[in-house]
Amino acid sequence: MVPTPADLTDLIATVSDGAVLTDPDLLEGYRHDWARDPDAGTPRAVVRAATTADVVATLRWAHARGVPVVPRGAGSGLSGGATAVDGGLVLTTERMREITVDPVTRTAVVQPGLLNAEVKKAVAAHGLWYPPDPSSFEMCSIGGNAATNAGGLCCVKYGVTTDYVLGMEVVLADGTAVRLGGPRLKDSAGLSLTKLFVGSEGTLGVITELTLRLLPAQPPQSTVVATFGTLTAATDAILAITGQLRPAMLEFMDTVAVNAVEDELRMGLDRTAAALLVARSDAPGEHAAREAEIMLAACEKAGATEVFATDDAAEGEAFTAARRYAIPAVEKIGPLLLEDVGVPLPRLGDLVAGITAVAERNDVIVSVIAHAGDGNTHPLIVHDPTDPDNTARAHRAFGEIMDLAIALGGTITGEHGVGRLKKAWLPDQVGPDVMELTRRIKHALDPTGILNPGAIL
Amino acid sequence: MVPTPADLTDLIATVSDGAVLTDPDLLEGYRHDWARDPDAGTPRAVVRAATTADVVATLRWAHARGVPVVPRGAGSGLSGGATAVDGGLVLTTERMREITVDPVTRTAVVQPGLLNAEVKKAVAAHGLWYPPDPSSFEMCSIGGNAATNAGGLCCVKYGVTTDYVLGMEVVLADGTAVRLGGPRLKDSAGLSLTKLFVGSEGTLGVITELTLRLLPAQPPQSTVVATFGTLTAATDAILAITGQLRPAMLEFMDTVAVNAVEDELRMGLDRTAAALLVARSDAPGEHAAREAEIMLAACEKAGATEVFATDDAAEGEAFTAARRYAIPAVEKIGPLLLEDVGVPLPRLGDLVAGITAVAERNDVIVSVIAHAGDGNTHPLIVHDPTDPDNTARAHRAFGEIMDLAIALGGTITGEHGVGRLKKAWLPDQVGPDVMELTRRIKHALDPTGILNPGAIL
Repeated sequence: MVPTPADLTDLIATVSDGAVLTDPDLLEGYRHDWARDPDAGTPRAVVRAATTADVVATLRWAHARGVPVVPRGAGSGLSGGATAVDGGLVLTTERMREITVDPVTRTAVVQPGLLNAEVKKAVAAHGLWYPPDPSSFEMCSIGGNAATNAGGLCCVKYGVTTDYVLGMEVVLADGTAVRLGGPRLKDSAGLSLTKLFVGSEGTLGVITELTLRLLPAQPPQSTVVATFGTLTAATDAILAITGQLRPAMLEFMDTVAVNAVEDELRMGLDRTAAALLVARSDAPGEHAAREAEIMLAACEKAGATEVFATDDAAEGEAFTAARRYAIPAVEKIGPLLLEDVGVPLPRLGDLVAGITAVAERNDVIVSVIAHAGDGNTHPLIVHDPTDPDNTARAHRAFGEIMDLAIALGGTITGEHGVGRLKKAWLPDQVGPDVMELTRRIKHALDPTGILNPGAIL
Repeated sequence: MVPTPADLTDLIATVSDGAVLTDPDLLEGYRHDWARDPDAGTPRAVVRAATTADVVATLRWAHARGVPVVPRGAGSGLSGGATAVDGGLVLTTERMREITVDPVTRTAVVQPGLLNAEVKKAVAAHGLWYPPDPSSFEMCSIGGNAATNAGGLCCVKYGVTTDYVLGMEVVLADGTAVRLGGPRLKDSAGLSLTKLFVGSEGTLGVITELTLRLLPAQPPQSTVVATFGTLTAATDAILAITGQLRPAMLEFMDTVAVNAVEDELRMGLDRTAAALLVARSDAPGEHAAREAEIMLAACEKAGATEVFATDDAAEGEAFTAARRYAIPAVEKIGPLLLEDVGVPLPRLGDLVAGITAVAERNDVIVSVIAHAGDGNTHPLIVHDPTDPDNTARAHRAFGEIMDLAIALGGTITGEHGVGRLKKAWLPDQVGPDVMELTRRIKHALDPTGILNPGAIL
């Protein structure tokens, strides 16, 4: 889409003072999200909305002029969902940061710019817990979490973002703000519109407020750490654990990740291990330790080389932090292409084995880390942008891993979203009829296509 | 809509043998659901689909001819969502009854005609649990549960149907069958279409298969029963309980319901009580009894006249069954108009008090039962269809109770759906912009409006 030229004066006059940035140096910081899309455009302006009224005014302005708008949370997305479009606007909600917590209904009303960690902290002050926990929780926004239906480590037991979104305020393409749902656990009045906007990656509307369901504070956890000599032994252990109970966390790191983390953190991880699992239970009282025993026994039976269990919170958190640190640690080897493929759990072993084959075939390093309990893996493809041949092989591996996930009945993205980086594979996963259905809904809600053009579709 | 005349021969030739019913005596049984809408039409035929191919063929036939299609599960709906339309088809999935349970992924693939109780039983054979539990679970279908986003007694802790639907096969208005989602806890690939169809009451498509998330078998429960001299004391106790923990069940019956149930079951319930609560905990091991103690203490502190706790499964189940029996018991007083209004929990006391005022003002009997823990109430308006004045007052009360719920920031339907009976109130709850959004999505998916015309919109 080539945007029509348009004077920004009207826009600047209708939004909060200072909301519109046009300084090229400042715009540069809003061209990319963490996917670092090399094809990112340059926006004509960035609108840093302070209020829903700013979002409304911006979309009215853009809608009237056919100017593309790329909504943006904290810019921590990994699929290029917030990649800027030439001549368009970037509309960021990073300044919308209010939160109100209601301990009685166990809900919070939050603005989209608050970081996930800030939501967790604010509700913890009331003895409550917002479960979804992307590894990036300290720098990703709650609005972006809703826009991508983000997951994290706790999902194996506690589900994903959509399971916690009871309502929202969302501004449609033409600038109409609507309220959907609310602080009610049950509401069958009309279509499930709230859930449609969760995971829509800014293609249907801009979320300006969320009503989130909260849980009582998570009980203390017991933690099991196990290392395995083969990938198969590790995936066997995963199935043995989930077949018996619902762990609060069940994470996997391969040998590349283990060594990369050990290089940085010096925790004494077994560098010879083919894989390491970190599993946790938050069952009440002594049941956490009992579940840990069951998980430990399952690991031993599957052939673990070392197992270790602890009820100590700090120790358990250290292993969880190590797992969260895997991506930055592997990134020290080289720039990463980051995958997010998932499969039905029984196919996890096939996926991990298949990824090894893809890496060998393309002669690239692929480190696999995974939210193993829900079959969601993050193969990390190390590549060297200065070497065109290596880069080509890395990109080929990137596609082949998505092809593999689809062939195994899985998904190209478990929690990061399709954005721009994965959209070429979406039709292969969902088929032409679902693509057509998607286009019909997109057209119904955004007939002129100004909202995040190029994302998903 | 006046359907165009059309010969059924082509339809009969393309669906399974015997699937098309045209005998007027048989059609009569498919005109109404449990809402018993007096304005129900007479269908030209009923299609009892045996396969997805039957549903595809039926919708292709109807779409080509502009014939309305009313999808139907078990016909137990309470909002007229399956009320037949003159000259249309009723398309029932009651014969589609297969189920496959996968204990490894803890999922089940089910056809829509299976009853909720049958799903529960089939998965229980694998040590698993499908939580959603409408009181009608022994006669409502899983397809209807998904179409209405049904709830039940467990929702206060375990959520509603949408929280358990991971994927589906759904046939669109033009007869295209699409597969959405699948047996994966995490999937951010494309729009959240699965969730859009949940709760769409047959207006967007016909669900022919569901992939359901399951939990491990529910642990044994401890049960607390408490009676109260005033409604206020009871609603205070509800807030005190939910403020401290998440009960697995927290149910409310007013004095009319208590007496109606006691008339039938002779359990020794206190007939003088203004309200009775039944609360349960399924926390692991002895934690259930501990939570029961906390709930019991909360009831005492709120001024309960009698309290009683038990770890005995049969005894706990007897009180749960008594609560489930409240609707048929109150129905012995007279035919019911059945409400399903919900409010944010802190407004529950205002709702219950307001309903009393509505009943007095209109001189009708209204018995309130409630899934109190999630703010979802079922005021039961007793009326006498042979008395036009009483009927008019009952209908006025029916509307006033929905107005009241909306005024309290609530919903006109927590779990039954809008259907045809409540659609006049939907715009008051959601507003004109959300209605317009709803119409746009409806039009995008069903441009000729053949799917369940008159429901929701």
